[in-house]
Amino acid sequence: MDETLHWEPDADADPTTYAYTFGGVAPVASVRPGTMISTWTMDCFGGRVRSSTDLASQVCDPRLLNPQSGPFYVEGARPGDTLAVHFVSIEPRETWGVSSTVPFFGALTATPTTAMLHESLLERTWIYEIDRADRIVRYLAADTPFTAALPLDPMHGTVGVAPALGEVRSSLTPGDWGGNMDTPEMRAGVTCYLGVNVEGALMSLGDGHARQGEGETCGVAVECAMDTTFILDLIPGAATAWPRLESDDFLMTTGSARPLEDAFRIAHQQMVRWVAELTGMSALDAYQFVSQTALSPIANVVDTNYTVVCKVPTSLLLGVSAMDGVHGRLRKVASAWAG
Amino acid sequence: MDETLHWEPDADADPTTYAYTFGGVAPVASVRPGTMISTWTMDCFGGRVRSSTDLASQVCDPRLLNPQSGPFYVEGARPGDTLAVHFVSIEPRETWGVSSTVPFFGALTATPTTAMLHESLLERTWIYEIDRADRIVRYLAADTPFTAALPLDPMHGTVGVAPALGEVRSSLTPGDWGGNMDTPEMRAGVTCYLGVNVEGALMSLGDGHARQGEGETCGVAVECAMDTTFILDLIPGAATAWPRLESDDFLMTTGSARPLEDAFRIAHQQMVRWVAELTGMSALDAYQFVSQTALSPIANVVDTNYTVVCKVPTSLLLGVSAMDGVHGRLRKVASAWAG
Amino acid sequence: MDETLHWEPDADADPTTYAYTFGGVAPVASVRPGTMISTWTMDCFGGRVRSSTDLASQVCDPRLLNPQSGPFYVEGARPGDTLAVHFVSIEPRETWGVSSTVPFFGALTATPTTAMLHESLLERTWIYEIDRADRIVRYLAADTPFTAALPLDPMHGTVGVAPALGEVRSSLTPGDWGGNMDTPEMRAGVTCYLGVNVEGALMSLGDGHARQGEGETCGVAVECAMDTTFILDLIPGAATAWPRLESDDFLMTTGSARPLEDAFRIAHQQMVRWVAELTGMSALDAYQFVSQTALSPIANVVDTNYTVVCKVPTSLLLGVSAMDGVHGRLRKVASAWAG
Amino acid sequence: MDETLHWEPDADADPTTYAYTFGGVAPVASVRPGTMISTWTMDCFGGRVRSSTDLASQVCDPRLLNPQSGPFYVEGARPGDTLAVHFVSIEPRETWGVSSTVPFFGALTATPTTAMLHESLLERTWIYEIDRADRIVRYLAADTPFTAALPLDPMHGTVGVAPALGEVRSSLTPGDWGGNMDTPEMRAGVTCYLGVNVEGALMSLGDGHARQGEGETCGVAVECAMDTTFILDLIPGAATAWPRLESDDFLMTTGSARPLEDAFRIAHQQMVRWVAELTGMSALDAYQFVSQTALSPIANVVDTNYTVVCKVPTSLLLGVSAMDGVHGRLRKVASAWAG
Repeated sequence: MDETLHWEPDADADPTTYAYTFGGVAPVASVRPGTMISTWTMDCFGGRVRSSTDLASQVCDPRLLNPQSGPFYVEGARPGDTLAVHFVSIEPRETWGVSSTVPFFGALTATPTTAMLHESLLERTWIYEIDRADRIVRYLAADTPFTAALPLDPMHGTVGVAPALGEVRSSLTPGDWGGNMDTPEMRAGVTCYLGVNVEGALMSLGDGHARQGEGETCGVAVECAMDTTFILDLIPGAATAWPRLESDDFLMTTGSARPLEDAFRIAHQQMVRWVAELTGMSALDAYQFVSQTALSPIANVVDTNYTVVCKVPTSLLLGVSAMDGVHGRLRKVASAWAG
Repeated sequence: MDETLHWEPDADADPTTYAYTFGGVAPVASVRPGTMISTWTMDCFGGRVRSSTDLASQVCDPRLLNPQSGPFYVEGARPGDTLAVHFVSIEPRETWGVSSTVPFFGALTATPTTAMLHESLLERTWIYEIDRADRIVRYLAADTPFTAALPLDPMHGTVGVAPALGEVRSSLTPGDWGGNMDTPEMRAGVTCYLGVNVEGALMSLGDGHARQGEGETCGVAVECAMDTTFILDLIPGAATAWPRLESDDFLMTTGSARPLEDAFRIAHQQMVRWVAELTGMSALDAYQFVSQTALSPIANVVDTNYTVVCKVPTSLLLGVSAMDGVHGRLRKVASAWAG
Repeated sequence: MDETLHWEPDADADPTTYAYTFGGVAPVASVRPGTMISTWTMDCFGGRVRSSTDLASQVCDPRLLNPQSGPFYVEGARPGDTLAVHFVSIEPRETWGVSSTVPFFGALTATPTTAMLHESLLERTWIYEIDRADRIVRYLAADTPFTAALPLDPMHGTVGVAPALGEVRSSLTPGDWGGNMDTPEMRAGVTCYLGVNVEGALMSLGDGHARQGEGETCGVAVECAMDTTFILDLIPGAATAWPRLESDDFLMTTGSARPLEDAFRIAHQQMVRWVAELTGMSALDAYQFVSQTALSPIANVVDTNYTVVCKVPTSLLLGVSAMDGVHGRLRKVASAWAG
Repeated sequence: MDETLHWEPDADADPTTYAYTFGGVAPVASVRPGTMISTWTMDCFGGRVRSSTDLASQVCDPRLLNPQSGPFYVEGARPGDTLAVHFVSIEPRETWGVSSTVPFFGALTATPTTAMLHESLLERTWIYEIDRADRIVRYLAADTPFTAALPLDPMHGTVGVAPALGEVRSSLTPGDWGGNMDTPEMRAGVTCYLGVNVEGALMSLGDGHARQGEGETCGVAVECAMDTTFILDLIPGAATAWPRLESDDFLMTTGSARPLEDAFRIAHQQMVRWVAELTGMSALDAYQFVSQTALSPIANVVDTNYTVVCKVPTSLLLGVSAMDGVHGRLRKVASAWAG
């Protein structure tokens, strides 16, 4: 490990000073490739929804949702490079999380774009107890005594860099720059690969979830502030068209688009190309291989783009090393740090 | 177990005599609820694609694809009932399986409905070795020496009943009658629930896969003839709007539609309703619960309707018994039979 | 004109005896190519919704919606031929029409496939006055005194033949066999071309609209019984993949699919191919030509498939004659008949 | 007319200095509401594709496509107001226009998001002759002698303001800020209404088309530099969620989204609301009225969002005056100016 940086958002600052976009925000710090950064991230409501009587539509300003920690400027990062974000540790900062229904947001409701004439569904807030020792997130139904102990599975919904074409995109949107992909695969132990679009990459992250279901059906996970440590590294000269992930067991590609089949198409076309490149197989052989081996979990069907993940087990790709083996190297650095 | 039936398709018969639709076909046998049926199913090509030099577009008649075994008339089954299909055993009948690319069919190609001006991708056939003892399906790349041992995971792509509204639907299409859902969840040990639309239900099945990736990206799994044993049972007076599945570990709902987000919506709306009904939770509480607990694997993004599955772990629904507990009962019958 | 046939549905018969599907119904008559048929069609509710207090969900059986007149067996028609349906006259049979909202049906509401958790929109029925002399359809708002005189523009929502692959499809669904396309272009003076899938073609029609907006947004047009005269003719050896239309001013192609962009793609790909075939242009030149000249009115965004029409002015295609000039010939026959 | 402004882009300047985004660009001028602005706009290729041997992929930098003239800062415009852009005159600046196929762009080809494994279609450029006197755009096929005289129908593909949420969006994308809607309805004589998201509105325009087909199927219209005169006016306190248009004959709403049915839903929901507001009808009555009276032309099925227009004839809405009658007033100002 080259260097470390500890950076904290200022919880007492004016909320308008936080980063709510990818692109269009000045970096909070500049780091060299290989730097391990420890920070924390606010929940998607900026901490304003704290009890079951707080309704997001009443206590939140719609322009101040999903604040990001960062952006971090990575020295030497240029368009055409790939940024590796290795998650060393992702742990809930508090002993509670929050979810809610939000008017005209979610997969099973009319929205501003799936525009209808219905009244909104009822807005409601649920508070979850997070037991970090027992690794449990406790669900309590509001209308009946039903309760359930759900496994704690912390992750970041939003990880990204500044977009291409000079665009500035809301932190609520996922796309080829990453952003609000909302996939539970973004766990500790995983490396996320993001194509660099501007000098310094300008990486930021937020939207911690104590856990979420695939698809994030109602649009809101078990949202919580998160203590997170990650390493930023650089693979120079390796372009990555869409965000990819690597765990010890899987290579993963993502696609974010509408309709949902386009998100699927992107992720699986990218995996076909990645497998072909890594194994030397022809495109058609790789297409066949992916068709029989892929897992295709849905990430979100609620954001302004939907996200699908394609996973192929690395055990079926013997001897293959992706992205110059950066995942394995950073995994070791992380282990040494965890000591 | 009440009764047993052994029924075999006649491999020497004129292929035009097989069943290629759900609805519109006379039953091959009539059984009482509780009957265990052993049969076998032809592969989706009717056994005509047997080597890497056989191309489906040359050796198959497009009107004679995906032959089904059945239909079976279930005595007493009426519209408004639910048919339970419990898979006792699903085993490849041969030591080989076959996959292919098919012109203008698949998720990463133009199709007759995602109509474009491209030439078709190259048509090609891959033959897989199936090792039933070692539970391996061997992939051999065509253009390079790459090979991989994939886990054998046998399943049926197509399981259904006669549709409503007097419709007769091709066995290539999935919908609320079941049909060509192409989900790898349709394994031995699983119970599939299908709403009955016509007297006798008229259940049939086919399209055995030695394994498939989620999404079935190229449109063709590792297709094979299959020896299958299943039990047909009836849950009278229980309507099921869309096919559901139950394993020892999961309750599952399905949705089949285009665009893919509608398949997602159906499956997850159905799960919200099912969880609410089973637990007594309000719809909004169940929406929240499903949002945090669902797994959402894609089944197919290639058929005339796309299919998504929603899975919720039964371990999070303590004490709940779905569909009068029929899955548990049939599981025991199956175990007793397996001895 | 070779021959004429007058055939009437029996309004006093048991409604279960009418045709509600394309395919799966025995022909009501057999005619030779060139026959002029005069008939009438019931409205989509089978005449059961007659006042603003009649609600379709209460007075209609969902299995008995959209009854069709026919099917007519056309002698000599075989798969690979094209059937020409020339509309000589389409006139409302009564002085009233009816529209309504239908629970979970329409473009601006949740539906069984765009599945959500909303309650249904309010069900309501509107009765329209049809003034055949003044060619007016009068709209009367229910909640305020607003009224408007809309131009009478009679058409058939549903025109089709038996589908391929042995399928039987509900008259509520449009597809490559025609069916419930719900395009206002299906007027008197227009010829509709349908590919023949089974011997005799088995053409039927229904779903008269005194007028409709494009998209048929709420799902129900100004529905009315219709007196209709049409000529059936045959273009042997000319396959038509998707329904096409021809008026004196336009060549038109249709596509019916979900999502709506696929309906657009089908219609426009078919037009590119048609223009290339008629003019001898290359596919790329025809693509360019269509891109600058097409009108693309939406037909319906409410049925189980959505429909888009592509129109190119024949004035831009000097000297071109489509489908062996059958439209021009039948137009003359119709004029002679009208005398 | 209050004031006039003549502003010209500098054709000799470094192309990187032009505006390629909505938002994120400093205004080129500040005007008072009511100002008539005369300007010209470059074609979408920045004038770099000038002959049939110029290929956009070779002569254009993908970061420098679709340059906009502006943005213009409108004094007093604030979030919650509506900006009225009345087009007085839109005339081709040259006697030629250009269209092309672009690799992986268009409705009938795989794209970066409708991701497939096809090779791109052939890239090709067509040059059109524009005859301003005879109002003709001449199409010349490349591979055969076919030619056609198409009606000149000049319009702007791209008109918009700075987006909400601090976003900066590429001029290639349409959305609720306007942008690249690519509708042929954006003609001289039409008023476009845009909701203001930031102080000054920051309106810009470009992407002149000598004409285009609906849907802009191949992705490129008959592109040309355009001499344009328009009036900017303000309707304070009137929020407009999505761009609307008004001609002498029609009220129009737009929706831009994917899939295409969502673009339809937005446009038609907005029209239902507009009609209800203007007539005092209930939402349900307005839904019914729009369902029977709307025209629904498709604008584009090629951009990063698709666009649909909903048109209702003002003749059916007697006595109604939209947006404080600004269209009628500006029409008179324009007539006086043309006088």
